[in-house]
Amino acid sequence: MTNTKLDLLRDELHKLEVDGFLVPRADSWPGEFVSEYAERLSWLSGFTGSAGIGIILNDKAAVLTDGRYTIQVKQEIDSMYWDSADITKISIGEWLAEYAEEGSKIGYDPFLHSRAQIEDIKRKVQDKDIELVPLSANPIDSIWVDGRPLFPMEHVSIFPESLAGKATAEKQRELAKEIKDLNGSGYFFATPDSIAWLLNIRGNDVPETPVPLSYALLKDDASLVWFIHSEKITDNITDHIGENVSIQAFDTIQDELRRCPGFIFMDEQRTPIKFIQMIEEIGGNYAHQEDLILWKKACKTSAEKEAVREAHRVDAVALRALHEWIKSRSDDAHLDELSIEQKLYELRSARNSFQGNSFSPIVGFNENGAVIHYRATEKTNKTITGQGLLLIDSGGQYMCDAYAGTTDITRTFAIGTPTEEQKFHYTLVLKAHIAVSMAIFPYGTTGIQIDTLARHILWQHGLDFAHGLGHGVGCFLNVHEEAASLSVRGNKVLEPGMLLSNEPGLYFEGKYGIRIENLMFVQNTGDVDNLGRDLLSFETVTFVPYDTDLIDQSLLNDVERKWLEEYNLTVSNII
Amino acid sequence: MTNTKLDLLRDELHKLEVDGFLVPRADSWPGEFVSEYAERLSWLSGFTGSAGIGIILNDKAAVLTDGRYTIQVKQEIDSMYWDSADITKISIGEWLAEYAEEGSKIGYDPFLHSRAQIEDIKRKVQDKDIELVPLSANPIDSIWVDGRPLFPMEHVSIFPESLAGKATAEKQRELAKEIKDLNGSGYFFATPDSIAWLLNIRGNDVPETPVPLSYALLKDDASLVWFIHSEKITDNITDHIGENVSIQAFDTIQDELRRCPGFIFMDEQRTPIKFIQMIEEIGGNYAHQEDLILWKKACKTSAEKEAVREAHRVDAVALRALHEWIKSRSDDAHLDELSIEQKLYELRSARNSFQGNSFSPIVGFNENGAVIHYRATEKTNKTITGQGLLLIDSGGQYMCDAYAGTTDITRTFAIGTPTEEQKFHYTLVLKAHIAVSMAIFPYGTTGIQIDTLARHILWQHGLDFAHGLGHGVGCFLNVHEEAASLSVRGNKVLEPGMLLSNEPGLYFEGKYGIRIENLMFVQNTGDVDNLGRDLLSFETVTFVPYDTDLIDQSLLNDVERKWLEEYNLTVSNII
Repeated sequence: MTNTKLDLLRDELHKLEVDGFLVPRADSWPGEFVSEYAERLSWLSGFTGSAGIGIILNDKAAVLTDGRYTIQVKQEIDSMYWDSADITKISIGEWLAEYAEEGSKIGYDPFLHSRAQIEDIKRKVQDKDIELVPLSANPIDSIWVDGRPLFPMEHVSIFPESLAGKATAEKQRELAKEIKDLNGSGYFFATPDSIAWLLNIRGNDVPETPVPLSYALLKDDASLVWFIHSEKITDNITDHIGENVSIQAFDTIQDELRRCPGFIFMDEQRTPIKFIQMIEEIGGNYAHQEDLILWKKACKTSAEKEAVREAHRVDAVALRALHEWIKSRSDDAHLDELSIEQKLYELRSARNSFQGNSFSPIVGFNENGAVIHYRATEKTNKTITGQGLLLIDSGGQYMCDAYAGTTDITRTFAIGTPTEEQKFHYTLVLKAHIAVSMAIFPYGTTGIQIDTLARHILWQHGLDFAHGLGHGVGCFLNVHEEAASLSVRGNKVLEPGMLLSNEPGLYFEGKYGIRIENLMFVQNTGDVDNLGRDLLSFETVTFVPYDTDLIDQSLLNDVERKWLEEYNLTVSNII
Repeated sequence: MTNTKLDLLRDELHKLEVDGFLVPRADSWPGEFVSEYAERLSWLSGFTGSAGIGIILNDKAAVLTDGRYTIQVKQEIDSMYWDSADITKISIGEWLAEYAEEGSKIGYDPFLHSRAQIEDIKRKVQDKDIELVPLSANPIDSIWVDGRPLFPMEHVSIFPESLAGKATAEKQRELAKEIKDLNGSGYFFATPDSIAWLLNIRGNDVPETPVPLSYALLKDDASLVWFIHSEKITDNITDHIGENVSIQAFDTIQDELRRCPGFIFMDEQRTPIKFIQMIEEIGGNYAHQEDLILWKKACKTSAEKEAVREAHRVDAVALRALHEWIKSRSDDAHLDELSIEQKLYELRSARNSFQGNSFSPIVGFNENGAVIHYRATEKTNKTITGQGLLLIDSGGQYMCDAYAGTTDITRTFAIGTPTEEQKFHYTLVLKAHIAVSMAIFPYGTTGIQIDTLARHILWQHGLDFAHGLGHGVGCFLNVHEEAASLSVRGNKVLEPGMLLSNEPGLYFEGKYGIRIENLMFVQNTGDVDNLGRDLLSFETVTFVPYDTDLIDQSLLNDVERKWLEEYNLTVSNII
């Protein structure tokens, strides 16, 4: 008995004269979403989780995943041919050092790894004299032929300046000046949402994120080479981007890098190592520089803010309709997690501006709600019946001429009459959520400090949640936008215009989960503190009622009650 | 007209063939206190502040200080011969790059600088080809003869194992094992309090800190060479340290380093660069390793905790007597900041265990209380009269057979009838102080998170204070002990046994200052949270009443009032 795919792959590796190969779950762009054409790990091993890496040796193969997937991976892979391991306990390099033969050559696809990842592996295998070899083509592409999804080729669309608040030409000029000030000749961008932001365009190549797959080289004279399939570019896009931007195919990248003498910057964490190797091959100069767009994109313009507010008002109508549908259902009506997910999609789709989910919704009843990264499947799908808590975390992508935005909202509902314990836990989470919503803080405050405002309310009762309080959100872009973060890793200063989630929770394994989530802008209050610093606060833009059946009013203080009354008033005015 | 001292120094520099010289306020040990024999900057320039550096060139001399001293330095130096500058705006290297001639040689005393400081200067002057030259003797020592304080030669004393909670031999064995595990052959310690902790000894060489000035080389076989003047060592100390410790003079250090082949560790931030140069000269191997004692010393043993608690009970008696003396004074009685400082010293001295102040007390009435690092002088001394707020921040060093400890306490008092605004501000600070005192938090929580618990209460009213919430405190050692910190720089996990101050404040320039400070141990509550982590809290060890005249009870909630009642009950039981 043999495993055909592994056998075929090992034949390819033999031809390429390497003794092993790395198969990460990744495509040629950084970011959490992976295009279907690049789901090589899933095709080869059967493992469908969102994070993991396969390592194939001549006589052994394994999938390394983190704690979220250690059970799932065992169910999905064929244990005859595959092992699995927890990557937080044994890293890629450590696994290779243990199982690969001394002096062996391990191939990798340099489009699928960052420099940091490769360097880390190299350090861990150097004692065993193991060599990491970048391959010029991915050997899986030679054997995965039948039924392979095509590379996405969707048209690019314009993100109007009226919504972006700044012309792409102006953004390019400002960045070019920064590149010049840093004594560079160009910046090579590999992050799809940074490029979409820079060019005021959007796309449809990636699930749940409206970006095209492309690369861009911005030069210090503000000219830009955009590496993208020309089939995606219609005439209106050519007009929109103007003469300063030239469209080139992916296979011209090295030539274009050669035509840009001087220092080229890249973000080592956010660029495949392939492009660094390209520069090294041509004897060019390269320097690491954190993505220059990261923090600009995080701070929304006035136009973006208005667009986002309206997208949230539209989203709130769908959410509210869903809640009424759930709450008013008769006990006979069959209702389950998947049917709620579908109903929510239908309600959002009623608006033409709805472009799809911003992430796979989490609809978890009782014990399923306690799984933080839950996704309902036919197998896990629970019927909503009897008594319990229902957690719904979802978001939409919206875009039309008048507004645009990415939403992300969580509400938890009582099904039947809630227990006192459920009300106590819900109200604690609500208090944590309100504490952040109404916080005032001086300029200079960082994400970890805001995170603490929510968390310490739970600490007093010996409770906590094992995720951050909040993440950055894009404007009709990534729902998990890097940079801004309200968490223990949030060591950067919060700036006015940042859009962040506020989502404390509590989870009781095998019982239920509670999470309450709104999105908020960081804003100036207009006042200064006694030390002369600007005072900031949050402007909540999510307006969907909380389940009053779950609120123990006696646990709220006057200030919290007043905040809640005002929130409810705004909700009723909006819808 | 000439400046004799500068002329003499320049003659010396000429003989040594250098074009300039650095005169930092520092002795040959890291830390905030400087022995009088080493106050070269003050002798040369007249500047008496606690931080600063003199730079002497052939035709120019300047004192660089930070924002605290920019006014004072101008008053103290002779502007005919000296300039001054703000070191936060122009660093040492930048000043040299601007004023020293191209290609010039600048001497420095390698006992008075860390490697990091010298490297930073070198980077900034390399474009001007300026060379930094370590001198084998400090040229000021040749000209400062008359009236120079002697090198401190106080006897070393034993810190009994009954108070330390662990024998010095055991501490040495444990550390030796760590050195071995790190593949080192020895660790060279230059921090007086680390050595005092390691050897269970104390001394009297440094103002307000009970440590002897010494160095120590601990080898991987747990033997130790202690570099200290043998005159300081009495027979009982010889018995105490045992045969494994050999006493050597300072001038044998290089020979002893040579006798320790293999890697010797040092803490680059906490060791004069001289010792690194010594190793380099003999072709030895050196590696940076953060002071291995830093975090051990921060976590007090059960014995140390009991010793510290008793020292605080003793200190509380003196403080309470002072408060009654101030509050019950008649309006005719003349009372001023300096007389309060003296009275407090007298009250503490009533106990034989009192060894002196743990730092220079801050007694500030009204506007003087708004100066965070205030120190009353004959010139600034204010009479306590009329209406206002009086801030008293002080601490004592205690040591006897039964207990030992370092205290640090701040209370703010109303003189006359306080205004509503004063009561409002005081009560806000008290709320912040109580929030920390009663906090419960999981293992893994860091200092910045606890700092936020206090600060956010002030933020809500547009108020804040420009210093950290708290610092680590030694056990009859440094009142400002490095390592543990409750501040925005506190990114390390809080561990049970750490002793920290809890001192929020509010300062209104030209009006008044408020600060309330207790010391607390981090302790295990014995419970775990829902994520399985140990729950921690603080055990307050300072028990001195707050001024009830300043508390606006209507601003306190039930939980805060209950905490205050219990605190007052404990206070009355203690005294």
